[in-house]
Amino acid sequence: MALYVQKFGGTSVGSVERIKAVAEKVKRFRDDGHQIVVVVSAMSGETNRLIDLASQINDEPTPREMDMLVSTGEQVTISLLAMALHKLGVAATSYTGAQVGIQTDSAHTKARIQRIETDDLRADLDDGQVVVVAGFQGVDEDGNITTLGRGGSDTTGVALAAALNADECQIYTDVDGVYTTDPRVCTKARRLESITVEEMLELASLGSKVLQIRAVEFAGKYNVALRVLSSFEDGPGTLIVADTDEEEDSMEEPLISGIAFTANEAKLTLLNTPDVPGVASRILGPIADANIEVDMIVQNVAPVGDYTDFTFTVAKGDYKQTMRILQEQVIPALGGGELRGDDNIAKVSLVGVGMRSHAGVASKMFRVLADENINIRMVSTSEIKISVVIDEKHMELAVRALHRAFGLDKSDIEAEE
Amino acid sequence: MALYVQKFGGTSVGSVERIKAVAEKVKRFRDDGHQIVVVVSAMSGETNRLIDLASQINDEPTPREMDMLVSTGEQVTISLLAMALHKLGVAATSYTGAQVGIQTDSAHTKARIQRIETDDLRADLDDGQVVVVAGFQGVDEDGNITTLGRGGSDTTGVALAAALNADECQIYTDVDGVYTTDPRVCTKARRLESITVEEMLELASLGSKVLQIRAVEFAGKYNVALRVLSSFEDGPGTLIVADTDEEEDSMEEPLISGIAFTANEAKLTLLNTPDVPGVASRILGPIADANIEVDMIVQNVAPVGDYTDFTFTVAKGDYKQTMRILQEQVIPALGGGELRGDDNIAKVSLVGVGMRSHAGVASKMFRVLADENINIRMVSTSEIKISVVIDEKHMELAVRALHRAFGLDKSDIEAEE
Repeated sequence: MALYVQKFGGTSVGSVERIKAVAEKVKRFRDDGHQIVVVVSAMSGETNRLIDLASQINDEPTPREMDMLVSTGEQVTISLLAMALHKLGVAATSYTGAQVGIQTDSAHTKARIQRIETDDLRADLDDGQVVVVAGFQGVDEDGNITTLGRGGSDTTGVALAAALNADECQIYTDVDGVYTTDPRVCTKARRLESITVEEMLELASLGSKVLQIRAVEFAGKYNVALRVLSSFEDGPGTLIVADTDEEEDSMEEPLISGIAFTANEAKLTLLNTPDVPGVASRILGPIADANIEVDMIVQNVAPVGDYTDFTFTVAKGDYKQTMRILQEQVIPALGGGELRGDDNIAKVSLVGVGMRSHAGVASKMFRVLADENINIRMVSTSEIKISVVIDEKHMELAVRALHRAFGLDKSDIEAEE
Repeated sequence: MALYVQKFGGTSVGSVERIKAVAEKVKRFRDDGHQIVVVVSAMSGETNRLIDLASQINDEPTPREMDMLVSTGEQVTISLLAMALHKLGVAATSYTGAQVGIQTDSAHTKARIQRIETDDLRADLDDGQVVVVAGFQGVDEDGNITTLGRGGSDTTGVALAAALNADECQIYTDVDGVYTTDPRVCTKARRLESITVEEMLELASLGSKVLQIRAVEFAGKYNVALRVLSSFEDGPGTLIVADTDEEEDSMEEPLISGIAFTANEAKLTLLNTPDVPGVASRILGPIADANIEVDMIVQNVAPVGDYTDFTFTVAKGDYKQTMRILQEQVIPALGGGELRGDDNIAKVSLVGVGMRSHAGVASKMFRVLADENINIRMVSTSEIKISVVIDEKHMELAVRALHRAFGLDKSDIEAEE
């Protein structure tokens, strides 16, 4: 007998029929003797419907009232799923975030879980009940309903799994696992049997939107075994494991696990800026003040004189505002500098714990891209990731070439399946 | 400065525009310096939408899960109304029934309020906040969400008014007050300036569905001044007052205040039943066991022998089942009796505290009906009510004739307004 926390997203509970299908799936695990906690999101479309109602009334609703409003979405789903389980003869009880005792801070619309009270949950589980919990929501110490932000149901699932010391947290979604890269761009993308938390974090933050990054962080921090599976077809999915010890790496460990990419960034460069102390913070300070997030940062000292070149990327949506801040505030404050910008770029990243112990990943990556006549505009590296910025038009070509070169392609036998 | 509890029903908050209109109305009272607690129902149609979802999943959902489901309806409205008030610059905070501390018993879908914690509410009011409370819902001692049954938002309003010792509980609805009878049947029906709780109870239970009967009972018990007004037009509405002392009745006090009627009952008669001790309970016992509610009851001793005639009415929907119970269980058990039934009947009732001190109301009623050639099938009376059962086809004629004869018609001047 195992204890599973199973999380079903909005698409998986998006209709009466799908809720019934989820109940069937839960019943199969229950019939096998397992204890089950189910975490559900709002039915797909419902949260947007509620947000739309709010926007017709007040273009700047207070976060507290938004949480009060949108938290009804999951409350509808938990009651409907409990009813569907009852219909199948499965004992089940639904709980809102507040009822289950998911205590959060008071940061409405982006609250963080502080603790979960598990006594009642455990009593229900020991009593043979399936416990159905509203994802995405909690309650602060004053009894106000809070939400964890969109997609926060994953976090609820992992946090419950950690608090209950569950055997596995299963995240059911509309894909059947984590892939080496996006199958829509590279038809030879393969589903990974497993991936480390660290790799998953790099992939998630780089645009593979299978799981919420906070949920993965949580899973790593509390050592929760996390599995991504399809709601709609049976299969093993992808297990997200705690970092394996390097010593245990097998020889067959691939150099890299996946390739992430995004065309949603823009690049800005300040050339010939006076190289005064603290220049980086004087450039990025006004940008942070405007709540613009900076991703890649590269700084070079110019070959001649006390000048420096400073390049960074931001989300495409922030490009124009960032240009304006640099032109109007930063350059005058620094006393000089020449501004360049480019929003026709793409970022392509190789991710893999395997590259830790292997030199030469970067040089191989650069050679593969050179062979395709793709110019590299910018490079940044971490222990398990190498990212390059290239022209946007080359993004898909780069992904496919790298996927093949690093041995990630499905074999022909797999491809025919 | 007064403290008002204002309750708005589902029609009054049935759209974004109507929610905004409610906010405007609340703001006007707030601007006049009053303290306001607003109680709202679910947007019209929402509760039915949720019930329909449930019925697609489970034809016998548990009451606990139904309460979990439908209570989201009011939660949506409170947040939207708070947002609408904020938009107008009015400080406001929304609370679910559980948050405000509306403690009920555990009778899901028909729970009764046991107590209300008012400390936090008072603090908010003293802080200048409009408090927006979800009607219809509460929480039991185990933290389960309960509902008071459909229409229970009126009860929430009155209970809050009682707990807060409010100056008035204002029930906003889609009619502009309580009328002498249904204006759709009698065009000369008049709005009453005031009506006693007792009269209102008789009118409500007889089919004038302006207010929930439990809310009126509550108002009488806790001496809450209750006013019915229109959400959509300004006007004084009808004040529902505690019973006036008979000594204070003015000479102009009308004999009766209103005429209620319903065609939704059916009549059953057991003729020539052996008149044994406890015959009434032996007839009605099996009917009560089947959860069928009996309304009027008349028993006559037959002119010859130890036989009795026993007549009563039930809701039309229970007619066939009641016939079956009498035929299959009651008559064999009593050892005799002849069954008659009629579901083409109507009940018409005169209601008024004025009739207490006046003889002759019944005889005048009978004469008016006789003048119209309407046969009376059954009569029952209480201190402030006389009900007759007549053929259904005569119902509207009877209502109009009685309305005129008892001086309830609008004057021609009023009629022309």
